[in-house]
Amino acid sequence: MDVLIDADTIRSPELRHEIPAGIIDPFLYGEHDGKPFAVVSALDAPTIALARPDLHQVDMIADLGLMELVADGVSPYQAMLEVRLRACREVGVSEAAVPPSFPLATAEYLRAHGITLHVDRERFDARRRRKTPAELAGIRRATVGAQAGLQAMRDALREGITCEELRVIVRQAVEPHAALGEFNVARGPQTATGHGPGSGPIQRGEPVILDLAPQDRDTGTFSDIARTFVVGDPDPEIARWHTLVVEVLEDAIAHVRPGVEGRELYARACDRFEAEGFATQRKPGKAVMEGFPTSLGHGVGLEIHEAPSLGRSGEAFLSGDVITIEPFLCRPGFGGVQVEEVLLVTDTGAELISDFTYSL
Amino acid sequence: MDVLIDADTIRSPELRHEIPAGIIDPFLYGEHDGKPFAVVSALDAPTIALARPDLHQVDMIADLGLMELVADGVSPYQAMLEVRLRACREVGVSEAAVPPSFPLATAEYLRAHGITLHVDRERFDARRRRKTPAELAGIRRATVGAQAGLQAMRDALREGITCEELRVIVRQAVEPHAALGEFNVARGPQTATGHGPGSGPIQRGEPVILDLAPQDRDTGTFSDIARTFVVGDPDPEIARWHTLVVEVLEDAIAHVRPGVEGRELYARACDRFEAEGFATQRKPGKAVMEGFPTSLGHGVGLEIHEAPSLGRSGEAFLSGDVITIEPFLCRPGFGGVQVEEVLLVTDTGAELISDFTYSL
Repeated sequence: MDVLIDADTIRSPELRHEIPAGIIDPFLYGEHDGKPFAVVSALDAPTIALARPDLHQVDMIADLGLMELVADGVSPYQAMLEVRLRACREVGVSEAAVPPSFPLATAEYLRAHGITLHVDRERFDARRRRKTPAELAGIRRATVGAQAGLQAMRDALREGITCEELRVIVRQAVEPHAALGEFNVARGPQTATGHGPGSGPIQRGEPVILDLAPQDRDTGTFSDIARTFVVGDPDPEIARWHTLVVEVLEDAIAHVRPGVEGRELYARACDRFEAEGFATQRKPGKAVMEGFPTSLGHGVGLEIHEAPSLGRSGEAFLSGDVITIEPFLCRPGFGGVQVEEVLLVTDTGAELISDFTYSL
Repeated sequence: MDVLIDADTIRSPELRHEIPAGIIDPFLYGEHDGKPFAVVSALDAPTIALARPDLHQVDMIADLGLMELVADGVSPYQAMLEVRLRACREVGVSEAAVPPSFPLATAEYLRAHGITLHVDRERFDARRRRKTPAELAGIRRATVGAQAGLQAMRDALREGITCEELRVIVRQAVEPHAALGEFNVARGPQTATGHGPGSGPIQRGEPVILDLAPQDRDTGTFSDIARTFVVGDPDPEIARWHTLVVEVLEDAIAHVRPGVEGRELYARACDRFEAEGFATQRKPGKAVMEGFPTSLGHGVGLEIHEAPSLGRSGEAFLSGDVITIEPFLCRPGFGGVQVEEVLLVTDTGAELISDFTYSL
């Protein structure tokens, strides 16, 4: 089956995997009879050639008449669609698999002119499962950045310092290593609600969660790590939760190997949490965010959240998968505890990519 | 006309404009009879409520039965599509305008179940033309970051320093102010080819172009500025080109006001360059990248390149547009000269957002 992707490599993990270079303007990439091609501007041609020397470049101006279309009064936007169609015809693509995110406008134009397209999520997810050596090196660099952030926060953490101040300190520590987008420093009851950025001064005994996903600048790959900290003596319930979360994390890590299914590890974690009286997605409590309300983890690579899943429908691991395991316990209005590790699935088990204490 | 956007706010400028907060997981946003709604997870609900207090939230678990679907054996991916359909039915959306980038997979699912969708690029481009006060403040902060990078490079520039070393220096100067993705420090013949990142040691007399588009961390808006530098005395042809490029830039800035069309300014620039014997897109030379081969500029905001255009089809400016003007001259194998400024279209003319010398 031929393949088409219409995207830029900054926003599209599917395309970044095929063209390992940062290209901000969208272009059409394809494979016909297994041979890759791309419809490129003269500006981006050298960068793409360097990243994929085997790729056949079709120049949208010199080969496909983009300027003549615009000179004839076609809008640049319509002309870019027509150029994509002309490339498919020139290369010989009449039917292709596309990712779920394929832009509707391009799909409608190609289909209206006789090209058949099939959305095929599994195909594109599967391509990114086993990381390339370059992608794995990128995840390792991003993880070094994440650990620098965790260490800086651990060093700076004291009663009264605010989440906002801690965010600045973490960012300064991470950015020499990797880019850092949105991330959370949550405290007290904020740690129960998840994705908010966090605010206000840290109090003694309350949980503080740092969850961050730095992105390697060369490859665009992410890491994703979280730890829970406490200033002074932890609230006894938080301490008990933390012990249990670390136990579940270590048990899951010990059971990772190719062929084991993400759903099995999720079920093991639920068994343990439910035995201690916590709600899970399998046995929901009264509140949506209560007990262990999330999945156990996810693949990570050119997206922060990608295949495989470690939730209720998690598939079998492959050697070369990079996954996170992130058990979480919470109660609305009170707080939460999370520890998240990133690891590589090897032929025989798992290799921790991160190396940072779990201690509160 | 109702509206639907299915995206995350990191990658989608259309959605970030409606929900001014960073949300990494995709969700469905819509407007029915002018009233905004979104299908959200409990994790993202607080952040979205803070960014858009007027928005009606539909919880995908509590309101739309996501967990029951998964418990019944529906894959999480299919369940997310079904939840989007259920939200449209519950809110009452039966027909909607969508951006060109709307994901094909969601479009197919909604259409298969009776929802009519129309791609409407102009509608979504137009929404982002007049910047909100928050977006404009973000562009100003990103511009301060860009200028810090230009200044750091100017201070560090000397014979023998490499493009790679300069890139590190620029990044360190920009990142305290704004995020910085891909950017170019090109030297000598590299300055003629455009988007490559640049490499090797700087030589006396050759042009060095720094082109960078930092992104404000709070709002996700970009700036976009470029300057050409030379160590020692410039090659006489480079000096002549630079004088002409600055003349064309200043002439264009002097003619910006609401109602003036981008194509008029592009034509003025072509008139001037062609009078000096340079090829343009209107009168192409032998090589694709020769003379003035690009447009004169573009809008900038939540995308680096957005409406309005300052090329052959450039539309009329509106008060509140933010645009860049970036005349460029080049010859393959020799080099190029570019100066790029960012400015706000005001009621009566233009206000420069950047403030940095044009001097070589």
